[in-house]
Amino acid sequence: MKVGFIGLGAMGSAMASNLIKAGHEVTVWNRSPGPTEPLASLGAKVVKTADRAVLGDALFSMLANDQAVRDVFLAGRLLDAMDKGIVHVNHATISVALAKELAAEHAKRGIDYVAAPVFGRPDVAAAGKLNIVAAGRPGVIERVRPLLETMGSRIWPLGDAPERANVVKIAGNFMLGAAIESMAEASALTRAHGVSAADFLEVMTSTLFASPAFQGYAKLIAEQRYTPAGFALPLGYKDIGLALSAADATRVPLPLASLLHDSLLEALSAGDEDVDWSIMAQVAARRAHLDERKL
Amino acid sequence: MKVGFIGLGAMGSAMASNLIKAGHEVTVWNRSPGPTEPLASLGAKVVKTADRAVLGDALFSMLANDQAVRDVFLAGRLLDAMDKGIVHVNHATISVALAKELAAEHAKRGIDYVAAPVFGRPDVAAAGKLNIVAAGRPGVIERVRPLLETMGSRIWPLGDAPERANVVKIAGNFMLGAAIESMAEASALTRAHGVSAADFLEVMTSTLFASPAFQGYAKLIAEQRYTPAGFALPLGYKDIGLALSAADATRVPLPLASLLHDSLLEALSAGDEDVDWSIMAQVAARRAHLDERKL
Amino acid sequence: MKVGFIGLGAMGSAMASNLIKAGHEVTVWNRSPGPTEPLASLGAKVVKTADRAVLGDALFSMLANDQAVRDVFLAGRLLDAMDKGIVHVNHATISVALAKELAAEHAKRGIDYVAAPVFGRPDVAAAGKLNIVAAGRPGVIERVRPLLETMGSRIWPLGDAPERANVVKIAGNFMLGAAIESMAEASALTRAHGVSAADFLEVMTSTLFASPAFQGYAKLIAEQRYTPAGFALPLGYKDIGLALSAADATRVPLPLASLLHDSLLEALSAGDEDVDWSIMAQVAARRAHLDERKL
Amino acid sequence: MKVGFIGLGAMGSAMASNLIKAGHEVTVWNRSPGPTEPLASLGAKVVKTADRAVLGDALFSMLANDQAVRDVFLAGRLLDAMDKGIVHVNHATISVALAKELAAEHAKRGIDYVAAPVFGRPDVAAAGKLNIVAAGRPGVIERVRPLLETMGSRIWPLGDAPERANVVKIAGNFMLGAAIESMAEASALTRAHGVSAADFLEVMTSTLFASPAFQGYAKLIAEQRYTPAGFALPLGYKDIGLALSAADATRVPLPLASLLHDSLLEALSAGDEDVDWSIMAQVAARRAHLDERKL
Repeated sequence: MKVGFIGLGAMGSAMASNLIKAGHEVTVWNRSPGPTEPLASLGAKVVKTADRAVLGDALFSMLANDQAVRDVFLAGRLLDAMDKGIVHVNHATISVALAKELAAEHAKRGIDYVAAPVFGRPDVAAAGKLNIVAAGRPGVIERVRPLLETMGSRIWPLGDAPERANVVKIAGNFMLGAAIESMAEASALTRAHGVSAADFLEVMTSTLFASPAFQGYAKLIAEQRYTPAGFALPLGYKDIGLALSAADATRVPLPLASLLHDSLLEALSAGDEDVDWSIMAQVAARRAHLDERKL
Repeated sequence: MKVGFIGLGAMGSAMASNLIKAGHEVTVWNRSPGPTEPLASLGAKVVKTADRAVLGDALFSMLANDQAVRDVFLAGRLLDAMDKGIVHVNHATISVALAKELAAEHAKRGIDYVAAPVFGRPDVAAAGKLNIVAAGRPGVIERVRPLLETMGSRIWPLGDAPERANVVKIAGNFMLGAAIESMAEASALTRAHGVSAADFLEVMTSTLFASPAFQGYAKLIAEQRYTPAGFALPLGYKDIGLALSAADATRVPLPLASLLHDSLLEALSAGDEDVDWSIMAQVAARRAHLDERKL
Repeated sequence: MKVGFIGLGAMGSAMASNLIKAGHEVTVWNRSPGPTEPLASLGAKVVKTADRAVLGDALFSMLANDQAVRDVFLAGRLLDAMDKGIVHVNHATISVALAKELAAEHAKRGIDYVAAPVFGRPDVAAAGKLNIVAAGRPGVIERVRPLLETMGSRIWPLGDAPERANVVKIAGNFMLGAAIESMAEASALTRAHGVSAADFLEVMTSTLFASPAFQGYAKLIAEQRYTPAGFALPLGYKDIGLALSAADATRVPLPLASLLHDSLLEALSAGDEDVDWSIMAQVAARRAHLDERKL
Repeated sequence: MKVGFIGLGAMGSAMASNLIKAGHEVTVWNRSPGPTEPLASLGAKVVKTADRAVLGDALFSMLANDQAVRDVFLAGRLLDAMDKGIVHVNHATISVALAKELAAEHAKRGIDYVAAPVFGRPDVAAAGKLNIVAAGRPGVIERVRPLLETMGSRIWPLGDAPERANVVKIAGNFMLGAAIESMAEASALTRAHGVSAADFLEVMTSTLFASPAFQGYAKLIAEQRYTPAGFALPLGYKDIGLALSAADATRVPLPLASLLHDSLLEALSAGDEDVDWSIMAQVAARRAHLDERKL
């Protein structure tokens, strides 16, 4: 099929690559031109303005946050440039509020819209093994399913209302943050009693918590290796903020999300932004002054 | 080998069964006699006082809590009745404070001691697939390893000091509580946006959180099925208390454990004790008045 | 002096009255005309558009929140209608972010600006006994001091940068929320032990906590009388949100503010908005199921 | 009247002094003899064993904590040495659990018992201006009232069950801790926006929070002067622990008390015990890294 792809960060580039490798005809655009080169060498057509990527069967977008999505589609009027025949597949992790607004703006213009946030890091995206949560009209999801299947090992349809996919993504990232905090505090406790984080977390992530989320972050915590950032602290902070906003809007108290917010803010106040959000483990250790105790 | 086993609740009975089935000569005792019958029919010798179970190579004990362990071994003087040649393998989930006290009391009497708490529910114990965290002198752990291997699929040696195994067990249960709270809050959030707990948790526990801890509790939360209790609310509350006590003793702030304590206390104040501790999900839903909103 | 006053809610009306009674020539405007009548009968001149109230020595404004201030001064372009000779005294409780933005917008136009939020309820305003925290250029504050002294028993100058007054107001309201939560939880504890909230709070507010903030809210909590709202739940929730936003912007973790946010959100999720924010005491009691226990 | 007084710390000494100065015949005992000398010079009779202080109309005791009370009255059998005609007035801040146990032990022996914890620091005690919360049989409180009035400016009778006075004392100290934390966080917020803790707290404690509790601690926080300790960190930590225990026993979730516990534990983990518990303000500032920011 013939598609456009805009937003070529680490995730977007990997996802677009898989579309190209599967034989689709892909036109790409990115705000800064750097990331387009590797894709061009794979066969992508590179365009200089976003509106020229709006063509064929579908437009995929993987932009960084609410602001970027607003800038391109609403303020930048890309939405007005879209044909009615095309499906917009929005992979960005955005707020529920913007998700609803976008759904309404697409509907108003008669443009098919699928919210399709993904779970997985760049290496998972490169392997085409993302988990993709998708919401939008069933027939529309089916039309783009073959395309999504080049990027993800599994597509999880979540119903008609696009924001349903976004809230699942947000709630999932909240659970990731909770996983980090629970390992952070639990291993601070064992360290204080002489059991290293590495030894403790090996037991846990080989048994009850033998899942990708825990295994990945346990490694970082055990090695106190927070750079380079797999998922940067400010992004984690932003995503917990999305959970709190979605909760506020529907009046759902989330004390654990508040706790994560405070831990992440404490990490941010230390001044270093270019670290993985599992730096929360350092916050837990600092509260107990473990390093000064040589534990 | 010839061993004794005391404490025949659901866990202890399943563990003793596996020792018997593996061909060991097992003498059993329990405070109330009921649970001894099925083991007798498997070939166990049943005795009427605990001191008669202290014989052969090892004494295994799986008592309910600090109080029961104190009653039998310290107040009840069973420790004084033990031969120097025997190894005491204590599977109970007890406080770090009592763990240290027991280690000292055994050392004082020259009795070999292994703290060996287990991870797994009764069905896992019955299948001989527990994860056993063990601490004690290495030679001693090796002596009882063949016996432990009848009960567990994996033995995790954690060093000499027995309390190290207990703190790992306590920290592990704290992580389980955190897993429940994170699913409780996250699914309250998705419900408020129209995505059922079942749909949300299926995505999570099939992907990032595809581990036994999450899958087991997700099922209970999705079905709002808190009886019969797999792990009863008062036990969960007690275990979070053990984490907080161990943290207090070493001055490690654990805000997430405090939060779990408060959620469990709120559940307990509702008056029903005979429920699974995943009832925390009901607390999260009640805070948001979700049931009144028909969500 | 000759002044304008816009924003005639309960607070603004009481404040404007005192200006009139002190002999000043006051022109008033309000979005809805109702509240202007009593002031007209006291001698105020009533105008139909806000720009006509911009005259003489100073313009006082007491609008409800960020949105109202934005609507009138920025979107509504009232700022563009102001003469350079006039001082704008803004009494509203607004965000630190908007406070900074307004300071810059006034400076850009060469208009003198004083942020002057007040502490006190309508009855205190009527008595001219508010505490007014004021920030702006010292000479400018001095120019309007005689006017402020008709409204407040004390003026607290806080320096040049207007947002300093706003952050003090926000932090003060945060302390009020904390006072409520502390009485809410402490009296839930005493009730559970047979000491009524009334008896307990009488001791406290007659001794260590003998201050207006505690005495006022203790009465509401002791009598479980949350309507009519002195300070409505949604306003309290908004103000704790202002504290959290100001904290986020400067990366200051405020776990107690997070806790208040969650308690207020729990109160809001019960569905009744037209209650005093001391309804937090009901939340604390509900968490302990005290009413069901007849305590 | 003729009375005994045991437990002569800073508080007990000041209280005993007032009894002596009022003309009562006072016999004193203290574990370590040092503090008895100043009282001897005022006219007290000093005895070498606690049982010799049990004489006349009443025995007052002001011991440090549960352990000291247990050691002297239960383990040390002082209770068994008491005549039936005497009233025991226990001023100690003890747990609700011990309060109930003591009530029962006194009743069993037919000894009149009044729990009479006090609010006020040593200087207030020296001035005879304590607030005394008293619970016990009304007739018994009346008998000792003239004696209590030499120590306190006001006696607050709280009913028959002695533990009612203890829970009020515990809940009151919890409110003090909450007052500190609220000033700690609120002034961290204002500091981050350029308003010093001193400036902010002066406004607050001159207005809405013009009460002894706030004024006393505000001074320490504004000056960051945590030594010498007015009320030492470990005592504050212990008292919040008493609140949490009393809450656990009656299943009352107290999230704010949990938060205070965690803040105090964080302060304790820094290693310095000989500081005032208002050191919580330093914890709040450290979480925000304010000192490193020169705020």
